[in-house]
Amino acid sequence: MLLIDEAALDDITLGSTVLGAGGGGDPYVGMLLARDAIRRFGPVPLVPLDEIADDANIVFIAGMGAPGVLIEKLPRAAEYERVLRELERFTGITFDYVCPAEAGGLNAVTPFATAAAAGVPVVDADGMGRAFPHLEMVTPTLYGGSATPMVMVDEHGNNMYLTTEANPWAESYARAAAVASGANTAMALYPMTGAQAKERLVRGALTVAAEIGRTIKQARVDHVSPVDAVLENQNGVLLFRGKVEQVERRNEGGWTIGTANLSGLDEDRGLSFVLHFQNENLVAERDGAIVATTPDLIMAMELDSGQPIPAEEIRYGYRVAVIGLPSDPHWRTPAGIDLSGPRRFGYDWDFVPVEGFRR
Amino acid sequence: MLLIDEAALDDITLGSTVLGAGGGGDPYVGMLLARDAIRRFGPVPLVPLDEIADDANIVFIAGMGAPGVLIEKLPRAAEYERVLRELERFTGITFDYVCPAEAGGLNAVTPFATAAAAGVPVVDADGMGRAFPHLEMVTPTLYGGSATPMVMVDEHGNNMYLTTEANPWAESYARAAAVASGANTAMALYPMTGAQAKERLVRGALTVAAEIGRTIKQARVDHVSPVDAVLENQNGVLLFRGKVEQVERRNEGGWTIGTANLSGLDEDRGLSFVLHFQNENLVAERDGAIVATTPDLIMAMELDSGQPIPAEEIRYGYRVAVIGLPSDPHWRTPAGIDLSGPRRFGYDWDFVPVEGFRR
Repeated sequence: MLLIDEAALDDITLGSTVLGAGGGGDPYVGMLLARDAIRRFGPVPLVPLDEIADDANIVFIAGMGAPGVLIEKLPRAAEYERVLRELERFTGITFDYVCPAEAGGLNAVTPFATAAAAGVPVVDADGMGRAFPHLEMVTPTLYGGSATPMVMVDEHGNNMYLTTEANPWAESYARAAAVASGANTAMALYPMTGAQAKERLVRGALTVAAEIGRTIKQARVDHVSPVDAVLENQNGVLLFRGKVEQVERRNEGGWTIGTANLSGLDEDRGLSFVLHFQNENLVAERDGAIVATTPDLIMAMELDSGQPIPAEEIRYGYRVAVIGLPSDPHWRTPAGIDLSGPRRFGYDWDFVPVEGFRR
Repeated sequence: MLLIDEAALDDITLGSTVLGAGGGGDPYVGMLLARDAIRRFGPVPLVPLDEIADDANIVFIAGMGAPGVLIEKLPRAAEYERVLRELERFTGITFDYVCPAEAGGLNAVTPFATAAAAGVPVVDADGMGRAFPHLEMVTPTLYGGSATPMVMVDEHGNNMYLTTEANPWAESYARAAAVASGANTAMALYPMTGAQAKERLVRGALTVAAEIGRTIKQARVDHVSPVDAVLENQNGVLLFRGKVEQVERRNEGGWTIGTANLSGLDEDRGLSFVLHFQNENLVAERDGAIVATTPDLIMAMELDSGQPIPAEEIRYGYRVAVIGLPSDPHWRTPAGIDLSGPRRFGYDWDFVPVEGFRR
């Protein structure tokens, strides 16, 4: 069992920006929230998935904001404790652990606010091993796990409790409610047992985030390439090194959708490259061939500093490395591809495992 | 105690179209639903407000649809029973009575579907004495009554349970959820005791609807003017008789907003008339002077048949009588005017009691 203090939280925050794969929301906001809770209540135990009891009760904690709100206004830690208590009241279950739904982006760290304030440990796992834009796009969905009973609370003191017939309905209701609240909301969802968690979750997702964060920082100290260090540490694939030439980006109902076109720096690794994103980077094309797709992770990192560049911030002139990481084996099943592959996002391409393009 | 059978339901349906004051949704849809439940489970007792025990438990039942859905697709009675059971499960309260939130329009009759299926009587009262477009615009709000705990269920099997800090939040969340459901929803809301109901509700709202319905039908049988009969029976005010010359109507987020301009048939009652509507008819102008405003009721009725004409159906060529009815005394308090007067809807006019223009 590891104790997550401020320093470890900082590592997870940086690493979760990489696992955000271009999206997932800015972890900095969640870090402030979680850091404040850790300062007030002390470090949070991080427990390996395989050490929890089969009959333990676990629940995902995540935040969802009305579009544009998170940036303007910090969420409050009080909601992250309240949401757990409300789900306990609604279900009659006492939860032994909380867990991130996604280890990529903002919601990698929000569960630490709940954990510190409520005095429960965090499980070292998540439901994605990355970030995805819909709450039904989690590995428990592949095993018939239900997003509900769930609770969403907002900073006005409103509580919404949901039971739904299928997980996409939970997404629809929660998204609509987040907009209606005009605010930041916190959710407790996908209640499950320890046995279910062991079958369904992505193991070690938070230690992976922490490792990536530490690796980038250490490389900066050692004056070596953070990109190369992450590739080595995570068994990743360098897809392209290039300069951003053109970005087309539009905002549709809170989604950041578009493409970034890059020109190559290495002759032997292609002349042109296109990143297709919908919040997250979903498809990568090199010289007209698909070299990586969702659910595998595609991230742009600033070439020198290794700083991950979200899809909503990438712009002309950036010199970046685009790296690929294999997604968790849960996602590479037919059901996993069906739930999170390129066709799910409206692209007319099949899933291409990123290792195929290792060179 | 009265028993509401199919014939009585038919009277209430017609009368509630008048009480809809131009809006409230088409009661025909609700009537089909309630009639089906009455046919299967038998007539429903209608109990006067003053006959219920102070410690009885009462709850409003109402439907809310995604814009455009109600017209295309009938709601199902199953949801109207389920919603009551879900609120009982959520609150631990067993409800002794159901009651309409609004006696105007569709939701005058939807509680009969719940009542018949669940085997509970309906209270002869409502929270408006008319129709209004927001769920916080009910008389209990004037007394600090809370819309929540409430439940909304949809026809897909999803249930949303809410607790909110203020009634406008319940409106925001419920409206967003109705849209997210893409369907018809049923709600159980404003749980209250018998003592609270006696203080807060509009007495006899359903017998008023039934009386108006019977009066129109009897006048048609007797070959007398249904408009005159309703005016006499309900102590109403004839505001204008005229021909619809021009209608401007737009749809904004599911709201029917606009004006109807009429030319006069009676020289001594003015030359021109303007109906301002936002779902309901909210302000009436005669020769440039305000003669009636919300919360008083303003209805257009077809001159010969007495058929009430909703704001979304009024059009060029109709010959109509526009009548006014005083709103319930609850609404004529400063708090009532504040919650439902013309300024609440963005008009720059003060409330004008409709009796001032009796002639």
